[in-house]
This record gives sequence, structure tokens and C-alpha cells, in this order.
Amino acid sequence: MQARYQHAPIVPEELNATIETMLNHRSVRAYSDEALKPDTLELLVAAAQSASTSSNLQTWSVVAVQDPARKERLSQMAGNQEHIRRCPLFLVWVADLSRLKTLGVKHGVAHAGLTYLEAFLVATIDSALAAQNAAVAAESMGLGVVYIGGMRNQPEQVAKELGLPEYAFATFGMCVGYPDPLKPAVVKPRLSQSAVLHREVYDASALEAAAQNYNATMSDFYTMQAMKNSGPWDLHSLNRLRGPESLAGRDRLVEALNNLGFELK
Amino acid sequence: MQARYQHAPIVPEELNATIETMLNHRSVRAYSDEALKPDTLELLVAAAQSASTSSNLQTWSVVAVQDPARKERLSQMAGNQEHIRRCPLFLVWVADLSRLKTLGVKHGVAHAGLTYLEAFLVATIDSALAAQNAAVAAESMGLGVVYIGGMRNQPEQVAKELGLPEYAFATFGMCVGYPDPLKPAVVKPRLSQSAVLHREVYDASALEAAAQNYNATMSDFYTMQAMKNSGPWDLHSLNRLRGPESLAGRDRLVEALNNLGFELK
Repeated sequence: MQARYQHAPIVPEELNATIETMLNHRSVRAYSDEALKPDTLELLVAAAQSASTSSNLQTWSVVAVQDPARKERLSQMAGNQEHIRRCPLFLVWVADLSRLKTLGVKHGVAHAGLTYLEAFLVATIDSALAAQNAAVAAESMGLGVVYIGGMRNQPEQVAKELGLPEYAFATFGMCVGYPDPLKPAVVKPRLSQSAVLHREVYDASALEAAAQNYNATMSDFYTMQAMKNSGPWDLHSLNRLRGPESLAGRDRLVEALNNLGFELK
Repeated sequence: MQARYQHAPIVPEELNATIETMLNHRSVRAYSDEALKPDTLELLVAAAQSASTSSNLQTWSVVAVQDPARKERLSQMAGNQEHIRRCPLFLVWVADLSRLKTLGVKHGVAHAGLTYLEAFLVATIDSALAAQNAAVAAESMGLGVVYIGGMRNQPEQVAKELGLPEYAFATFGMCVGYPDPLKPAVVKPRLSQSAVLHREVYDASALEAAAQNYNATMSDFYTMQAMKNSGPWDLHSLNRLRGPESLAGRDRLVEALNNLGFELK
């Protein structure tokens, strides 16, 4: 709790091992040479499948990549991220409407609902809930993970590399491996709860103070960790969203999704 | 494991309390009168904030609703779902780009990237990862939850009810409460892993057998639980997506999002 918020830690009486696992989350980008234990992948997928799924439609898939050459190519597609190459297991989480599409065609029943933004959103959310269960399960086993949004930089190329059918979209990737003890990752502080938790109705009045405090917290954090300080959190964040040129190719996501069979109407 | 898959259970050596909590997930729609313990909400939010967030942008919020009149109105908006009225705590998870929008305006810096589908997707995924951590945290404390996709039936009305600013969208709701011991929920089986887990490349060849097996599994499950059997899983699922008229108002999601400030270009 102290590491997550720096200021104003809460020490609730209901803390348990599961919640401690979550509070201890840190993005792990450096892995030891230790191989994964047998059945790890199947257990991660069982945890993932245990997450809620909209109307039990189960509109997600996961592609487990371990082949070095394929990881290398996916790493390039994600802006040359070294940790994709290095992790023993790279999971690509897929918003997958292709199963229902295939079954609809097989049964000869209408399935035009699949072409609406709503269906894409259901699949995207399904894939995220599943992935987060897998992430927590992995961490509960002593593994480290990091999400890879860069899978969206070149959606068609990623789909081709993984042989995805139409109506399937790689939402994000996830590197999995045992953390390198020589390069430990740290818990990153977050905005104070006053900025994200609203009671009864949305209340933006705490935002300005919370953002200022958080800028200071993150500046102290980077100094303490001897990490590169990329300037105040708010300005740094805004710089990533300044315009289409800052989106690493993702400004053409609508076009890419249409190319993959989605219509998003 | 047995309950989750019915057929072909796996009993891995690495099972732990956290993974058992996840495997035991069931959607809980009936609650006891027991009040939540102090600090429960803050602990759920701390777990939620500990989830990964794209580039640390933290583009989500949560609105905690306990007022009976507000829960009643939200229940109506979600297609009159009784459990929203009955749960002691209703969490509405929000894809929230409004914080960055506000900070961009305050600092006078460019933030046109916020109007792309990519930014909306980042916020939607952020909200889902956060919510899933809260769900698992709640279950680890003995609480039950159920996700409410019906928050997307009438996005503008929900936004108005919760006082959401522009660039904020209620992704889904979540009922939280102690399960009613007289109305226990059960673990729902899922598709076999052969349908959702792909190795190296996507492989659709197992789909047909997996869907047939799952239709049979679900039919047995409904009989065993004395629950209403709504027909084979695949046909029932497809019926929810047969066309715009089956989407409970969500066929106009693009229009609703534009009304809420998003542009999705």
C-alpha cells in the first residue's frame, strides 16, 4: 500500500494473500533463464477462462508464442521491444468474434450483430478480463508479466503472423517469465484514490490537486529509483496523445479493424 | 477445475489460494443483508489501481453507488436488473479520458490523440483490467460480484445520472455484496481449452468438436442445476447477435460515444 500510493497509505484489516499479490504488481521486463513449470500455460488459461465473459459468449482467444523466430518478428512489430524476444512465453490476447462467425455460417443463422462496435467492445473487454486473471495467476506463482500494447501498432501484420481468421484482433500481448533477481522491478505509485474513485456521482474537483501531488510523487520516485525522469506525469502523458503522429501507427486503427473484418458501425 | 471444465479436469501442482479464488468464480446476483466492512471500497480500488494501465495513463475511473434511488434508476437503464437494486454496492467502471482532456486544456498543450479509437480502446481496456482486479479482490474477501453490460444500453442517460464529464463512458457496472447463502450461485463450465488456446498460430480446427461438446456440457449443467435450458450454447449465443434489434439498444453505440465527446476516428 505504501509503495502504491507513497502518500496516505491505508492498512485495512481485510488484506489477504490474493490482494497482496495484486498490490505487489510491477511490470517485469527482465527474466531469469528459469524455464516455466509444466502445466503453467494451461493453469493460466484456466484462470483466464474463469473470468466473467459477457453473456457467456467467450469472445476471446489467446495465442501462446514460444518460438524464438516468431517472438523476434512480433518484437519488431511492437516497436522492437527487447523483452518480447527475451521472455520464455509471449501471450497474445485476441478479441475473437471469429468463433461465433464460423458457427453462424455453419448453422446458417443470422449474425449481423457481430459487425457492430458493441460486439467488438464485448470481445475486447472479454479478452482484457481474461488476460488480467492470467496476469494475477502468473504473479501468484512467482512469475512476472508485462502487457504489450504495441501489438496494436501493426494489426494486420500481427494477424498475419499469428494466422488469425477474420473477426479476430490482437488486443495486446503479455510477456511471461520468472523475474531476473539481478534486475528487480519496482511497484509504481498511482494517482491518489481521490482522482479515480467517485461517490454517487463523478466529482472532478480533486483532480488538480491529485495531479500536482502525483507529479511530485513520480518525480521523487524516479529520483529514488535512479530512473530517467521524463518530466511531470501529466505533461508526459499528454505528449503521448498529442496527435495522430504520437500514436505509433494506431491512428489508423479503424482502417485496420475494417481490414480484419470488423465494421464498427 | 472439475466444475470449470466438467470434462478433462487438470490438477496442476502449482494451484494456490489466489488461483483457487479465480477458478471458484461464479456470478452472484443474490445477496445477504450483511453490510460491507469498513474500508472494503478503498481496498477494492487499491487492487484496481494496482492493475497494469497503458503507459501509466490511468485512463479509468469508478463511481461507487449506494443510494437506493440512484441504484433503482440505473437498474431501469440496464433493462430492469433486480440485482442492481439489491446489491449494497454498485460500481460503475468508466473509460475515462476526461482527466487528460482537462489537464491538456489546463496546460494548453495538444491532445488530439484523445479523439482516436485507440485512446478509447486504451481507456476501455484500462477500465476492464482495473475492474477484474477489484472482482478478484472482492471474491478473495468472500464477496460476490456480477458484471453488468447493461450499462451500455443507454450510455447518455447513464452518463447524465452519474454526472460524467465529456470523454468519459461507463464501460460496465458491477454489483458487489455478500452472497445469499440460501441462493448459492454455481461455477459455470467453459469451452474446452482446445477452442481458446492456440500454440504459435491460431488453429480453428478444434472449434467444431469443442462447440458440440460444450453444447452437451451446458445442457447437462442446466439439467443438473434445474435451470432453464435455453437451447444449444452456440445457437443461443448467436441469437444474441443476430442483428441490431438483438443488441438492447447498443446498435447505436457509435452515435452514443460521439454524443459523449469521443470521435473514434
